[in-house]
Amino acid sequence: MKKYVGNQTVKFASPPSITAAAAIVGPKEGEGPLRNCFDFISPDVHFGMDSWEKAESEMVRQTVHLAVKKSGIPIEEIRYMFAGDLLNQIAGSTFGMRSFGRPFFGLFGACSAIGEGMALGAMLLDGGFANHVAVNASSHYCSAEKTFRLPLELGTQRAPTAGWTVTGSGAVVLSAEGNGPYVTAATTGAITDMGITDANNMGAAMAPAAAAVLAAHFKDMQRTPGYYDAIITGDLGKIGTTLLHTLMDEEKFSIHDRHNDCGLLMYDCEAQDVHAGGSGCGCAASVFAAHLLEELRSGAIKRLLFIPTGALHSVATLQQGESMPAIAHAVAVEV
Amino acid sequence: MKKYVGNQTVKFASPPSITAAAAIVGPKEGEGPLRNCFDFISPDVHFGMDSWEKAESEMVRQTVHLAVKKSGIPIEEIRYMFAGDLLNQIAGSTFGMRSFGRPFFGLFGACSAIGEGMALGAMLLDGGFANHVAVNASSHYCSAEKTFRLPLELGTQRAPTAGWTVTGSGAVVLSAEGNGPYVTAATTGAITDMGITDANNMGAAMAPAAAAVLAAHFKDMQRTPGYYDAIITGDLGKIGTTLLHTLMDEEKFSIHDRHNDCGLLMYDCEAQDVHAGGSGCGCAASVFAAHLLEELRSGAIKRLLFIPTGALHSVATLQQGESMPAIAHAVAVEV
Repeated sequence: MKKYVGNQTVKFASPPSITAAAAIVGPKEGEGPLRNCFDFISPDVHFGMDSWEKAESEMVRQTVHLAVKKSGIPIEEIRYMFAGDLLNQIAGSTFGMRSFGRPFFGLFGACSAIGEGMALGAMLLDGGFANHVAVNASSHYCSAEKTFRLPLELGTQRAPTAGWTVTGSGAVVLSAEGNGPYVTAATTGAITDMGITDANNMGAAMAPAAAAVLAAHFKDMQRTPGYYDAIITGDLGKIGTTLLHTLMDEEKFSIHDRHNDCGLLMYDCEAQDVHAGGSGCGCAASVFAAHLLEELRSGAIKRLLFIPTGALHSVATLQQGESMPAIAHAVAVEV
Repeated sequence: MKKYVGNQTVKFASPPSITAAAAIVGPKEGEGPLRNCFDFISPDVHFGMDSWEKAESEMVRQTVHLAVKKSGIPIEEIRYMFAGDLLNQIAGSTFGMRSFGRPFFGLFGACSAIGEGMALGAMLLDGGFANHVAVNASSHYCSAEKTFRLPLELGTQRAPTAGWTVTGSGAVVLSAEGNGPYVTAATTGAITDMGITDANNMGAAMAPAAAAVLAAHFKDMQRTPGYYDAIITGDLGKIGTTLLHTLMDEEKFSIHDRHNDCGLLMYDCEAQDVHAGGSGCGCAASVFAAHLLEELRSGAIKRLLFIPTGALHSVATLQQGESMPAIAHAVAVEV
């Protein structure tokens, strides 16, 4: 049975159900507006470990363990696990997942990872290849700064356009059957590169990718933005959000009145001094698992379009003068 | 319809067909035993670019372009593209794929990437989510050494247990319908970690992952190794191969008489001074695309079990004293 529509979208025949989710974050995230939504707020960024990379892996392990525990599904019935993060060779994910002993697909989509994993996981469920899958995405402020920018010890001043990498991990357990909310459609993004080279302005690099996948979704599904109660991007932050609104107006799919961004939901940007807002794979993942899913469950949102966004550069590509390609994936979740 | 069997395996209801493939390699690989099999042998490792990372991306772009061209399928009908490599943030893949404008799933499974991509791609095809997908995996000796080891300029002596990262890229185009060879089953590996910490002996880290997924495949499918004409691992090299044979004997699934390894097929190890053999995501991918697929098409192999293997460490995890987790995925390809 053909389940694809238009150019980039799949519409699920038996929409997979979100059975459980968990979100674990660091102390700064625990001081933000969503402080009452997370499953666990670590009192420090170490998670009991002696390195930031190990801390991220431990956070991943705890988050996936908790999501599976909340689902009530025995771990050996989780058919596949998907995970992605920002570290070189996605070490946060692989080391975090290595103790589970379940078939594993490692992903790299930068901060779009939770969207990539939810889309693939839902396809595997709807396709009859699994009964249950778990998907995780994570980031850690300290390990990300070390990987991409400058040693934290320098205390370098941050650019006003820069985002703040979320220390957080979000996991969802999807099942072939259940009581919802349901993943009803997924639009997979193509790589978009508008020539942005300023690594301190990732919102600008990612906004065109978000706009492209949103436009593709509306065209493929023959919907307007009004179909959704909420359209929530991953981590565009303030600057990327402004750009996205302009780009969507140009596409004749205005989203101002129902759009928000996980990077803006995560922090009180002024009071918490995070400049452009939150970023990192863990931003969209933990905001979805802790907050958006609860909004769906409570009925505050009935139809959500969730669009995690990622910038696909590395330190080497930036040093070689390359621009920053970006990608975004749109996942429709409905009650 | 339930398409999964046993603990880790899926058996395709309508096995996807391999419509086309392409393999592009560097000069050293072009001097090896498979020299007459590759689509293109670059006369140098630069691929016309001014950095090794850009060279890898250009090799990826050329390989995917060629595989799609050989398939005769218009690029806009390739529903999904999957790619993975070894570089930080899989820059070889993302920069190599950014010009295609097709929905993209970035993968990280280290040298198991081609197996991960073929398994996921086949599931998306059999599940009705696509008509055609393209999968690529790549590695480049110079960019990999720079990423993981020492500056090439030092001319450091190599350990006898070390492999030689293949400069190569292999792409396959899979279709929902076609004349085969067909992807008939896929067993997805779990992360295995036997505590190996010597990054110059990745064969030892990966052999247990290969053994685990092989044993799972035979149990899930209720088959013995004799079902297959050839059982070909990704890049275990000499040491990993010896270990795998021992481990499989212990599992009572002896594979000596029909096993080979892409890392041993790629080079004349003694004459080409590559020590333990070839490695890297591009090793299994290019050997499959250039050689194994031709063996299937010619009827020399009728039933192939292909098991790309990957070591999931990063420089940071090694420096922090971590062991090397590994993973392997088994893909059955039959005429």
